[in-house]
Amino acid sequence: MKIIYKAILPLGFKANGISCGLKKSGRLDLALFYSQTPAKAACLFTANKFSAAPVKLNKIFLKRSGGFQAIIANSGNANCFTGVQGLRAAEDTAVFLAKALALKKENILLASTGIIGRKLEIRKIKAGIAELTGGLSREGVARAAKAIMTTDTFTKEVTAKLNINGKPVSICGVAKGAGMIAPDMATMLCFIFTDANIAQPALKKALKIAADNSFNCITVDGCMSTNDSVMLLANGAAENKLIDTGGDFRLFVKALEAVCLALAKMIVRDGEGASKFIRIKVTHAGNFAEAKKAGLALANSNLFKTAVYGENPNFGRIVAALGASGIGANERRLKIKLSSLKKKDVSVEVGLGKGNSACTVYTADLTPRYVKINAEYS
Amino acid sequence: MKIIYKAILPLGFKANGISCGLKKSGRLDLALFYSQTPAKAACLFTANKFSAAPVKLNKIFLKRSGGFQAIIANSGNANCFTGVQGLRAAEDTAVFLAKALALKKENILLASTGIIGRKLEIRKIKAGIAELTGGLSREGVARAAKAIMTTDTFTKEVTAKLNINGKPVSICGVAKGAGMIAPDMATMLCFIFTDANIAQPALKKALKIAADNSFNCITVDGCMSTNDSVMLLANGAAENKLIDTGGDFRLFVKALEAVCLALAKMIVRDGEGASKFIRIKVTHAGNFAEAKKAGLALANSNLFKTAVYGENPNFGRIVAALGASGIGANERRLKIKLSSLKKKDVSVEVGLGKGNSACTVYTADLTPRYVKINAEYS
Repeated sequence: MKIIYKAILPLGFKANGISCGLKKSGRLDLALFYSQTPAKAACLFTANKFSAAPVKLNKIFLKRSGGFQAIIANSGNANCFTGVQGLRAAEDTAVFLAKALALKKENILLASTGIIGRKLEIRKIKAGIAELTGGLSREGVARAAKAIMTTDTFTKEVTAKLNINGKPVSICGVAKGAGMIAPDMATMLCFIFTDANIAQPALKKALKIAADNSFNCITVDGCMSTNDSVMLLANGAAENKLIDTGGDFRLFVKALEAVCLALAKMIVRDGEGASKFIRIKVTHAGNFAEAKKAGLALANSNLFKTAVYGENPNFGRIVAALGASGIGANERRLKIKLSSLKKKDVSVEVGLGKGNSACTVYTADLTPRYVKINAEYS
Repeated sequence: MKIIYKAILPLGFKANGISCGLKKSGRLDLALFYSQTPAKAACLFTANKFSAAPVKLNKIFLKRSGGFQAIIANSGNANCFTGVQGLRAAEDTAVFLAKALALKKENILLASTGIIGRKLEIRKIKAGIAELTGGLSREGVARAAKAIMTTDTFTKEVTAKLNINGKPVSICGVAKGAGMIAPDMATMLCFIFTDANIAQPALKKALKIAADNSFNCITVDGCMSTNDSVMLLANGAAENKLIDTGGDFRLFVKALEAVCLALAKMIVRDGEGASKFIRIKVTHAGNFAEAKKAGLALANSNLFKTAVYGENPNFGRIVAALGASGIGANERRLKIKLSSLKKKDVSVEVGLGKGNSACTVYTADLTPRYVKINAEYS
């Protein structure tokens, strides 16, 4: 398996990104990813009860349709807490795009990111559809990766190349997010494309495993967005022998996990106001869930994160955060190792002294700049 | 009922505060509260799994003893994560004090607050016991209130005066805490004294009700200390008719609740780096637990708290935090009212549109100064 830190679309995929005027700055704000043939989809959405309109509509489309050919995503407006009007705006977006691409609206997935509670200017999207679809190309993925950015300071792109039964297969992912939730410019969005030929249940299972070990192991500020979405399309263009279970499945999962983890780490590195990248490895836990719970409790502790910012190797705060997490642990068996805090990349190792399970989570420090960015944003 | 924002000890109680050298600054760091007769006790302790040695020892003493006559509390060292040695230091403290006051060690409750993971210098405490017990007086409570401070910028003192069946009764509380957990100078400690004659089960129940509506409804940074303790002593010196259930119990609870809520609000006002005092009232919830969950989710949202700091009336962040809390709510029925954010006291009202339950929680904003205080502390 080979990992490339650039988006290279697999066979049969095209993309584009344009500026349709949703962002006042004039920056790119509308992205399209397109598969020439119907693709299988696996998706994960936010658990936030006030999920955005595109999230709600995707769930309906995923029940109705088996084959997806397009993902359209806008930045600059989250289309969340926008009521029935917001749902209609999301549906209209799908209808306009379906017409331009000669698809059914149910073959389209949608995503939005930006300010919550403001009406989506659907006429701007409608006016941009021709340019968006007309400019589709394999290279267009670079513009698409830019068009989904909000407070991000860099695009997040990864491609994995592997062999499945002698056939070259690739998995390409682009993401945005600068905080699990950035200001109200909320949200982590991640779009992954593969030309692998893979069975629907295997695709779903693979995404779940990969996300559990990547996106679900990062946190910047502990806040959960209304729009978080991870979407994976598999169009089968690589013509490999169908991946179901067994060895090929494990190969595919490993590559998918590598793509997801690389994107997840980039999101943390681009965390709002972050000055440090923190890796927390919890070992000797009773089970994976416990290891993760302990790791995330530490990763979400403001006191721990400010200590790291201050390069203050304060292990009392680590003990307090672990104890507050609700996991059971024996004080005498607890082991804590801190790397030097003077560097940009910091690591903490926590041994719970209970069993053999482990989990690694990633987070950023809490800085005065995080507070300023989020206080001043409007 | 009359509320006075000063500690006035009820009949039969004395106190003192001295400097025994645990704090390098030479400030007061050892407090003693004393009841001339054995008092009934009700206590609430932190749920943190790595609870401090005094918390562990108190639990043992509470099982063994029916009557308590003293609470000794030190600041400057949390005596937490200190192993068997720490437990022995806590027990030695009780032994030395018991000797000086001619009590059994089991009649004493203990509390510590300060740095986690450092050995308690028990010889300093031992050396201070004579001065501490020798100087006991009713007025000494002012020094005791100072001796429990860590990053607090003011003492927290309240007294309620009421009549129970024609007899004057008073409830006096002192507390410390500048953050639910301050730096590693962790911890909220609260000591409450009453001369009320009250049955043991009623006392316990009263404290639980009062704490649920006060201390359990505040948060500064969402961090839970290893040393949090609320202790209530009732010595019966007011000679009122025994309070059990019924009308008198309700009167007592109302007064106790007023004392606890006043202290809880002072802790929030003294929150580290706080520039705003935020009151969050959640109404029309299905039940109290749901209202509280929604309120605390908002109160612990870094994005909401930075928005308040920035005087940025950003209701999208409120929606996102509520949705992430896990409570069920109908988007169309959700009502949010924000007071002007330009003032020091800010209030948010959230109507969930479900039932008739309500809860009010209190918090402070998240400021660059909070980050600096906690980054620079060592």
